[in-house]
Amino acid sequence: MSQKVQLTLSDRLRKSPYFDATIRAGASTFTIYNHMLMPTSYEGSEKDYWNLVNNVTMWDVAAERQVEVSGSDAYRFVEYITPRDLSNLQIGQGKYAFITDENGGIINDPIILRLGEQRFWLSIADSDVLLWARGLACGLGWDVQIHEPDVSPLAIQGPNNLPLMNDLFGDWVDDLKYFFFKETELNGIPLIVQRSGWSKQGGFELYLMDGTQGDKLWDAVLSAGKKYDIKPATPNNIERIESGLFSWGNDMKLENNPLELPLGKFCQLDKGAEYLSRESLQRINSEGVKNKVVGLVLSGDALIDGCESPWQVFSDKKLCGKLTSIAHSPRLNSNIAFATVDSQLSETGTKLTVETPCGSRNATVSDIPFI
Amino acid sequence: MSQKVQLTLSDRLRKSPYFDATIRAGASTFTIYNHMLMPTSYEGSEKDYWNLVNNVTMWDVAAERQVEVSGSDAYRFVEYITPRDLSNLQIGQGKYAFITDENGGIINDPIILRLGEQRFWLSIADSDVLLWARGLACGLGWDVQIHEPDVSPLAIQGPNNLPLMNDLFGDWVDDLKYFFFKETELNGIPLIVQRSGWSKQGGFELYLMDGTQGDKLWDAVLSAGKKYDIKPATPNNIERIESGLFSWGNDMKLENNPLELPLGKFCQLDKGAEYLSRESLQRINSEGVKNKVVGLVLSGDALIDGCESPWQVFSDKKLCGKLTSIAHSPRLNSNIAFATVDSQLSETGTKLTVETPCGSRNATVSDIPFI
Repeated sequence: MSQKVQLTLSDRLRKSPYFDATIRAGASTFTIYNHMLMPTSYEGSEKDYWNLVNNVTMWDVAAERQVEVSGSDAYRFVEYITPRDLSNLQIGQGKYAFITDENGGIINDPIILRLGEQRFWLSIADSDVLLWARGLACGLGWDVQIHEPDVSPLAIQGPNNLPLMNDLFGDWVDDLKYFFFKETELNGIPLIVQRSGWSKQGGFELYLMDGTQGDKLWDAVLSAGKKYDIKPATPNNIERIESGLFSWGNDMKLENNPLELPLGKFCQLDKGAEYLSRESLQRINSEGVKNKVVGLVLSGDALIDGCESPWQVFSDKKLCGKLTSIAHSPRLNSNIAFATVDSQLSETGTKLTVETPCGSRNATVSDIPFI
Repeated sequence: MSQKVQLTLSDRLRKSPYFDATIRAGASTFTIYNHMLMPTSYEGSEKDYWNLVNNVTMWDVAAERQVEVSGSDAYRFVEYITPRDLSNLQIGQGKYAFITDENGGIINDPIILRLGEQRFWLSIADSDVLLWARGLACGLGWDVQIHEPDVSPLAIQGPNNLPLMNDLFGDWVDDLKYFFFKETELNGIPLIVQRSGWSKQGGFELYLMDGTQGDKLWDAVLSAGKKYDIKPATPNNIERIESGLFSWGNDMKLENNPLELPLGKFCQLDKGAEYLSRESLQRINSEGVKNKVVGLVLSGDALIDGCESPWQVFSDKKLCGKLTSIAHSPRLNSNIAFATVDSQLSETGTKLTVETPCGSRNATVSDIPFI
């Protein structure tokens, strides 16, 4: 990052139940996410990256807040807010879904967890889904109750996650399928354990259901993790770009729609249940989307990790899009990025140029994920 | 502040159109407000305070975003979301109002500006009112269009604001009444000029209506302000507590209702227009509110300016509330604070104690504003 910015703390910027623990563990930089402080690095982005991809790490992701939807119209409501077909979502299962408005604009892209026939959590990215959902439910007059429960995820991520998880919880975690979850406890700490997490290195999220026990959970995981040389880490910009994980607020916003992303399998535009964005998304789909989110590989020396504002993308000197996320991949030894470009320029292999803070660079549209 | 926290920048944390100018001007700390970076100090909170109360200052408050409501149901909708009676809100006038949900909970506390018969801006505090309002309108099926326009306020605050404002805009600004506004321009920069701002030192807000001209506006004000020794500053925690200005996210949240605040004049529970929180607020009003926001004066040496998390408040060793904002007032030479306490303990003069990071302190309930 080129500019260093010091943050003034106040209660408006909430502290995670793990905040004190992350300070003790050496968290060096933070972001604000869902009105909450979230660590973004410990030993620096690249060192944290190697700890994540080579071994096992623990992350404070309490800022990934939950929006709980219950009531006799809860299932109907959750179907209504997304183009994803949730008709086969089982109790104990989660699914990635776009929350879309009447124009098809992306409000958020949570994991939707089904806790009961009529009880769901939306495990959200950085926008006030609570307000969107409550406003909409209020206007519709449906029988749903919507609130933010006292739930704060701690992630265990990295290829060596399973031995630690077995030590903590036993063998049953081996059989949890991706995005499935189970309610349990650890030394009396109430948890939901899900196979999930914002990396592709494998792992679990422990949804702490009592904010007063953050320190206790952190220390229990840290202590059990010692023999596996666990390290504190965070959602990692390098790894998530390598792995094709998009970030709401960066790679997609309210003015974008899901059809611009290479995530078509998460939209069932003809699904049986009624949903708010049906008309808009079907129209966009039949007319064709104007822009697409693509992967880019940029030539030349290693560029800075992360862009503070989008960089302009050109085709034959004509502005054709913006680069929204970038990292230098140590494993690929190349600069990899996500960009939104004219659909006609979105085919793999297309040659573009990008104006970076280090001058103009050649770029090639690439398949996602990069690894 | 006891802990220093370094922020990782990304486009998700938006930059104000004045960001580069504030860095040049020496902004030393920031907060995140409505997903945007906002400076919180230049020379330190107390030095900034004296610049504000003694002379004239300029503030980047672009993070005070606007939510524009238009369409044939716009007036009906704006009445619907607040217990404030807006029936006599003139075109060219603003009013402070609580936005409340179906339970009377406070979503936000914006200034509502009327730009036309059926066109309004909500000039908001730190929550996604855009999502609440769009969700609600969507569910109701009313004819309103709701979006965030390209509008970024720059505040001119301090007792010596008028000579500078006259130099910039002419004599007509003298006649603008509090919260009234007028559309105008400065060197071709499109603006709305309103007599307003988040201090009680007097001043105006210049609503920049073209985000590409932030630098130009900043420099025009800075240049004209030189002869008045204008200083860059920010919303100031000391001054706003002295003046009785509450902060959404600190002194009030979604779980609070407007009747807990000493701001009854901004609620007309029997107003003629229909509004969402009528039933809840009338019930709370007749049953009596359980908690009240009060002023506190704390004994002893100067305490730290600001609390990162609420401090506990006791009456006869029994927990009775929480302190949510604190500053040491240089003009009063005392520690002043806002706290939420049991209603029965809210009378001026009531003796309480507060657990501070510097030990227990005696506290006395005080009238607001303090100055």
